[in-house]
Amino acid sequence: MTYLPKKVTLIGAGNVGFHLGKILYEKGFQILEVYSRTKEKAVSLANQLDAKYLSDLSLASSSTDLVILAVSDDAVSTVSKILSKTYHSSNPLIVHTSGATSSTILAPFFHRFGVFYPLQSFSRDKEIDFSNLPICVHAIHEGDLQALKTIAQKLTSKVYSINDQQRQVLHVAAVVVNNFTNHLYHLTHQLTQAHQVPFELLLPLIRETANKLEVMAPHDAQTGPAIRGDQRTIAQHLEFLEENDPELAKIYKIFTQSIQR
Amino acid sequence: MTYLPKKVTLIGAGNVGFHLGKILYEKGFQILEVYSRTKEKAVSLANQLDAKYLSDLSLASSSTDLVILAVSDDAVSTVSKILSKTYHSSNPLIVHTSGATSSTILAPFFHRFGVFYPLQSFSRDKEIDFSNLPICVHAIHEGDLQALKTIAQKLTSKVYSINDQQRQVLHVAAVVVNNFTNHLYHLTHQLTQAHQVPFELLLPLIRETANKLEVMAPHDAQTGPAIRGDQRTIAQHLEFLEENDPELAKIYKIFTQSIQR
Repeated sequence: MTYLPKKVTLIGAGNVGFHLGKILYEKGFQILEVYSRTKEKAVSLANQLDAKYLSDLSLASSSTDLVILAVSDDAVSTVSKILSKTYHSSNPLIVHTSGATSSTILAPFFHRFGVFYPLQSFSRDKEIDFSNLPICVHAIHEGDLQALKTIAQKLTSKVYSINDQQRQVLHVAAVVVNNFTNHLYHLTHQLTQAHQVPFELLLPLIRETANKLEVMAPHDAQTGPAIRGDQRTIAQHLEFLEENDPELAKIYKIFTQSIQR
Repeated sequence: MTYLPKKVTLIGAGNVGFHLGKILYEKGFQILEVYSRTKEKAVSLANQLDAKYLSDLSLASSSTDLVILAVSDDAVSTVSKILSKTYHSSNPLIVHTSGATSSTILAPFFHRFGVFYPLQSFSRDKEIDFSNLPICVHAIHEGDLQALKTIAQKLTSKVYSINDQQRQVLHVAAVVVNNFTNHLYHLTHQLTQAHQVPFELLLPLIRETANKLEVMAPHDAQTGPAIRGDQRTIAQHLEFLEENDPELAKIYKIFTQSIQR
């Protein structure tokens, strides 16, 4: 039978640490300690999770089952180095939550390590529904991988075993469909604002574009002047944008070419 | 009181004509005749709408209240020329459904004209919920504008009076948030497929990116390596893409620069 870690140490109280800590607590895990570079964040989150506030990383309790490093990519290594002494003999499972970081970054510091990567864009003020949120797990030892799967399954129905290389692909993909798509929304928001057109008019179209992916591949969903080769509309749009929004004009050209390839 | 056109002639049985005809019929309008260049489409749609199939444009009945030109942008003018003789004396209201076309294109042919533009991307096989779909109306005469608003309000709660210039902005905006966003999905789909990563993992993130716009401006929702100035991750992503997907590498560079401006 798979063992199930019960006591969790949470390092980091940023957006990921905040939401992950809360859902783990809700699902019955004991959050032992919370650490954050920002004291107020750690104290506030620790209070919400009935956990101890950890004032100094080197004071972490060694008696824990799972340590979650929900810190910035740059900090994973530094934090691990400090924690390696504490956990040297008790040997708990250590995971980071970073999409962009290989699990092997933890290898110099711990025997049992892995990744617990929830694939979502977290905002502190926006509630997250974990039940359909994909969680990508990875671990060096089979027993640990099973444990991470079991934990993830308590939070969501979508648990994936994803290795370091696949996770790198996913992270690039996430940047494209989240940050780049949102940037298109932003440029469009500016354009409509500048011309007294309410941006909200576009929301149903934006939602439908996203929802279509549930029933068809993006290739089959494509419409519009570029794929139709409607040169007159393309020329009209470009003329308008070059006069009104050179930044968007540039992007319009590149996308039209790329769609037509 | 606003007069309400009751008898509708539908020219065009493509995606827009199909869905618009169906909802108007459902909402109690009498669809008099349906015409399409593609005979089978017109016959099939006419049957569904209890309407007459119109085999030849020049045979259209002059006794109608509203004529909807749901034809391709290029055809609006040609079709109007043919219909202008038929409607010369009965003088019904003529609207086109094109986001990209000025209403003035109808001026040489009709006295009463306007635009009835549902802002959505229609696919024949996908049901459309009209109740929240924005419909943009425009007409030269105030009475006609009111009539179009009344019709639109029977289909949706979101009716906007949008002039030709605003509609041009909207159409460019729609291409960006629909076609360009979908192209980002497509490029990502290809990338994940090529590396044995299930694309479905990204669907919750895609949905959340769209849904966030309901509660915050896209500018405030932006996250990721570009806006953080996380050069290490950007370099890592670019190195990976340049080796694996030069097309996406190009787009990655342009977006990263554009986000950072």
